Amino acid sequence: ASDPFCATLGIEVVDLSPGRARAELRVTEDLLNFHGTPHGGAIYSLADAAFAAASNSRGETALALETNISYLDADGVGETLTATAEETHLAGKTAEYEVDVVDGNGDRVATFRGRVYRPE
Amino acid sequence: ASDPFCATLGIEVVDLSPGRARAELRVTEDLLNFHGTPHGGAIYSLADAAFAAASNSRGETALALETNISYLDADGVGETLTATAEETHLAGKTAEYEVDVVDGNGDRVATFRGRVYRPE
Amino acid sequence: ASDPFCATLGIEVVDLSPGRARAELRVTEDLLNFHGTPHGGAIYSLADAAFAAASNSRGETALALETNISYLDADGVGETLTATAEETHLAGKTAEYEVDVVDGNGDRVATFRGRVYRPE
Amino acid sequence: ASDPFCATLGIEVVDLSPGRARAELRVTEDLLNFHGTPHGGAIYSLADAAFAAASNSRGETALALETNISYLDADGVGETLTATAEETHLAGKTAEYEVDVVDGNGDRVATFRGRVYRPE
Repeated sequence: ASDPFCATLGIEVVDLSPGRARAELRVTEDLLNFHGTPHGGAIYSLADAAFAAASNSRGETALALETNISYLDADGVGETLTATAEETHLAGKTAEYEVDVVDGNGDRVATFRGRVYRPE
Repeated sequence: ASDPFCATLGIEVVDLSPGRARAELRVTEDLLNFHGTPHGGAIYSLADAAFAAASNSRGETALALETNISYLDADGVGETLTATAEETHLAGKTAEYEVDVVDGNGDRVATFRGRVYRPE
Repeated sequence: ASDPFCATLGIEVVDLSPGRARAELRVTEDLLNFHGTPHGGAIYSLADAAFAAASNSRGETALALETNISYLDADGVGETLTATAEETHLAGKTAEYEVDVVDGNGDRVATFRGRVYRPE
Repeated sequence: ASDPFCATLGIEVVDLSPGRARAELRVTEDLLNFHGTPHGGAIYSLADAAFAAASNSRGETALALETNISYLDADGVGETLTATAEETHLAGKTAEYEVDVVDGNGDRVATFRGRVYRPE
């Protein structure tokens, strides 16, 4: 309810604790690209949602500065993808999070890393 | 019609030539995050759509390997964002594309770079 | 003289103005990797030196947060590589720089982007 | 002996097995930048050396396509930095490696990820 974009795509944050988050997305037809595989934007958005949840989990605002993603193996329609974000650094005004995205078999689909700025 | 994910978000490829593409997205309420600003996944998806269009513009399949994005200034609801992708390298099995995303005033919202693998 | 690491590798900042810098490096035998081509660390260090010069060119300290590099065409011993850094964004506490590295023929060898934090 | 660049900087690969490598670098005066802290290029080069060793550890040539690095806490002269590279994906023509760099206390100094192309 609190994140319209995630609701639009069907991304759900299923677990959240300080510095950690897990999000899920079921790959439906409307998330495909013109190759007929899940759009990179959909996979990225799932990873980014886990990153955003984890980085804002401490009650202070965190703003994304930089992210990067590696696309590994493709996966198909009907698959549920899971993104797990973990805080790997927190110091001063910035923090770093690593996110891996796996398919239903636990095979890695993508690796993501993000850095946030914490204005307060 | 050919890209269900872009249709889902409202991303439109408005210009396409060999090695170049331009895509647009109007920021609506359902693209916001819990801060009330456009979700990083929405901005990324726009950049990625321009990247995908440009990298597949030569009639050969191109698969995204790695991308990265810098988030610069935020922008608001109602704004139309424009992503322009340009091929900066094409050799052998890979190619590189740079994408900038600007708002209605031409101010840069994000910078993106992507690398593709061309299997053929 | 002021940057021992650049002196160690032979990197020279040849041009500097607010938000811009150009650096050069001649590829010698001691910069090669075990494949016999210039080490990625040498090419990166050249790009990073241009980035550091440009981002500190305004008289305020800038600290590197995140960088990324694409390796494009390889080049050989004896070649002089040139890295040109340009400020693509400057707002609040951060700034973004794009750097391209070209060989003696002007062919692009690498593309680099970096983001800095400005504590003051 | 086999890698002139690593010898130039004092980087040593201290452990190597299929898909993994560990490299060390003692921070000396000639690796500093104009701020008096270790140059980003030196930290990157250490991570890149571990990445190169790990990705070429299987007896097939691997060429770096894309890398990225997050700079976290700075460290000082006299410190020995250790970079550990681990293969997180290997499929078809590409592979992915994650590298963390820690100081003598085990505190993380930088996080690096790289993707290679394997031509054979």
